[in-house]
Amino acid sequence: MAAIITLTTDFGEAGGYTAALKGVILGIAPDAQIVDISHKIQPQNVFEAAFLLSTVYRCFPRSTVHLAVVDPGVGTSRKIIILRTPEGTFVGPDNGIFSYVARDYVSGPGETVSGLKRMALSGDAHAFEITNPRFFRQPVSPTFNGRDIMAPAAAMLAQGFQAPAFGQAINLIHMLDLPRPETGPDGNVTGHAVYFDGFGNIITDIKASDLPQTRTPRVEIGRHAIEGLVKTYAEGGGLAALIGSSGYLEIAVRGGSAAALTGTRIGDTIKIRAGD
Amino acid sequence: MAAIITLTTDFGEAGGYTAALKGVILGIAPDAQIVDISHKIQPQNVFEAAFLLSTVYRCFPRSTVHLAVVDPGVGTSRKIIILRTPEGTFVGPDNGIFSYVARDYVSGPGETVSGLKRMALSGDAHAFEITNPRFFRQPVSPTFNGRDIMAPAAAMLAQGFQAPAFGQAINLIHMLDLPRPETGPDGNVTGHAVYFDGFGNIITDIKASDLPQTRTPRVEIGRHAIEGLVKTYAEGGGLAALIGSSGYLEIAVRGGSAAALTGTRIGDTIKIRAGD
Amino acid sequence: MAAIITLTTDFGEAGGYTAALKGVILGIAPDAQIVDISHKIQPQNVFEAAFLLSTVYRCFPRSTVHLAVVDPGVGTSRKIIILRTPEGTFVGPDNGIFSYVARDYVSGPGETVSGLKRMALSGDAHAFEITNPRFFRQPVSPTFNGRDIMAPAAAMLAQGFQAPAFGQAINLIHMLDLPRPETGPDGNVTGHAVYFDGFGNIITDIKASDLPQTRTPRVEIGRHAIEGLVKTYAEGGGLAALIGSSGYLEIAVRGGSAAALTGTRIGDTIKIRAGD
Repeated sequence: MAAIITLTTDFGEAGGYTAALKGVILGIAPDAQIVDISHKIQPQNVFEAAFLLSTVYRCFPRSTVHLAVVDPGVGTSRKIIILRTPEGTFVGPDNGIFSYVARDYVSGPGETVSGLKRMALSGDAHAFEITNPRFFRQPVSPTFNGRDIMAPAAAMLAQGFQAPAFGQAINLIHMLDLPRPETGPDGNVTGHAVYFDGFGNIITDIKASDLPQTRTPRVEIGRHAIEGLVKTYAEGGGLAALIGSSGYLEIAVRGGSAAALTGTRIGDTIKIRAGD
Repeated sequence: MAAIITLTTDFGEAGGYTAALKGVILGIAPDAQIVDISHKIQPQNVFEAAFLLSTVYRCFPRSTVHLAVVDPGVGTSRKIIILRTPEGTFVGPDNGIFSYVARDYVSGPGETVSGLKRMALSGDAHAFEITNPRFFRQPVSPTFNGRDIMAPAAAMLAQGFQAPAFGQAINLIHMLDLPRPETGPDGNVTGHAVYFDGFGNIITDIKASDLPQTRTPRVEIGRHAIEGLVKTYAEGGGLAALIGSSGYLEIAVRGGSAAALTGTRIGDTIKIRAGD
Repeated sequence: MAAIITLTTDFGEAGGYTAALKGVILGIAPDAQIVDISHKIQPQNVFEAAFLLSTVYRCFPRSTVHLAVVDPGVGTSRKIIILRTPEGTFVGPDNGIFSYVARDYVSGPGETVSGLKRMALSGDAHAFEITNPRFFRQPVSPTFNGRDIMAPAAAMLAQGFQAPAFGQAINLIHMLDLPRPETGPDGNVTGHAVYFDGFGNIITDIKASDLPQTRTPRVEIGRHAIEGLVKTYAEGGGLAALIGSSGYLEIAVRGGSAAALTGTRIGDTIKIRAGD
């Protein structure tokens, strides 16, 4: 059975960087099933990659290796890590790109360093720093560790090599300070726009379980208000709110782009009022 | 031998929807060859998907499963179907997305419902409604049946499961009211621009066999006229007309975009005069 | 072990041409690993395809078949060839698209015909004209030889067929007049912008070995000057020069697009002054 390796990068369409990763991977793991999650992450936008990966990785078998290369610090002292959780194996820079997939496996307040929190992994997740040059593609380019260090590691893992072969176990990983919805004393919930999908649907960080316990929540986004939730994109006209396929509250508009219609930007707040 | 599954969607570049389909498919059919036909169908444009699929599916072995997800009615009462023709197996919503691939296998005037014609399949093609929840990914999201119902079905079909296992045979499927070229009493042919390819070539719905029997047909598109057909894109300067690789009349311009040059829009009429 | 076939084309996102290639390939070589290098080559830009391919092909095993279809002369008298070098097998039109991968294997001044140089291959590289119709997909469209002649050949090669089965050996291939950096009597080097990657980094044709032997070369691009080279994208602010992952001098700007910032165009000269 072929192992699966997914790719999430900010390489864009021009340049052969994505193909370079694949060539290196297939040279090591010739039968790997390589799946592109996205190569259109906004350049250097670690948060976007972290979030997008979190909406997809559970669709893959747990044996999948997820390689994520949004790496503005390439060639500097940031670590390159393997993260194993009960849900998958992840390879990438230790720059917060695995913040969402690791979210349930870290604890402690965490020391903040350069905008990232260093947090301790719990017993169910394990991380290893990739340092063993035996697995590197030589010579290692200081501008493309994805090709020369991460891709070979992902391919070797897919071939059955165990994570400890690549380097020391580490207990602390770096986490982004993720936006989180907050519930006020009045029961209202304040969340954020975190992603726009290809239809212009606005994905928020509000899970169904975060919603106020009410029959008809009122969703406020910018100057717009939406009364109640619908179940499908086909319902109603104008703006609609619904729980999308990744379990997050979404704002959509039938046959159009809610992001464009509302002028929403990533990070904007979205309020849910408990209503009646 | 690995089964082939093709994907045709309007998911676009942002969002992990395409990768979600692939993760689900590979979880069931680990050796499947998954081929992207396009994920850049204009959102909700069922016609565009139907046409594009029709230009490509004959390049694939007949054992291929073609999954097409342009599904503005997701979560509503529209059916999800498996269509088998002598040329392939197709999985998608019953919203007309298979109008071109089914065109030679339907008969009767057809009752028109919400802009779609319900037409009867002939003996060589068979359709089944997918209803058996045994094959669904649970829980089924009302906004992403592609991931939770269609992808598992496509993967199971690729693994050798037979269509009747998924649900009842149905005799009627929904067809778009496809544009068709018409030949007037004067022998002139009126067709339509149906697609622009990546070069800006204008693909029409006029087949070589629809052309007037004449040595030098005159092709009229907007304010432009083209005398005679050429064989290759490299011939002539300015606008040229030729029979393209899918068998349709195309309007092209050497080294440029005929769509941009002529300002043509999808659906615009194109006239072929019999000339001498 | 599955053979690898890479694809480099100018087909763009619209149209099913890329999928058509893949369908034909998989019909012949069902287990092939097909890797997209790029389908976003600027239409008819043979140079861009030639350069991009050269930055990537060494990441693939030598057994890989690289299919490159940027073919403005499709259907005309230009040859379709198989080129074998010690580093890979290449299939495409003989229009200069393999100029970079063949660069080390040609000799002689070369006769110039229509802007291309006909040059003789050396002993380590071999070329064959594809003429044997036994391997063609029938009927052969005069507008899509990629699908009907090149893809079947690439797939048969991946299946182990030998190049001479496809047609006669040829000794001369057509080469683009590639830009080359020049070193003046003052030791200064003049090179060119040849490619912009997805980050807007400006890739030049200047190799590390072309650089002046000096501690702090001064890089001049348009109205901008950069003192010295850095090792990683993360260093410094403003414009920076460094040796990129393909071994070429690059101009980059941290967190932005150097191409946009400098207004550079492909072909613009870049000067390296020896400095102190």
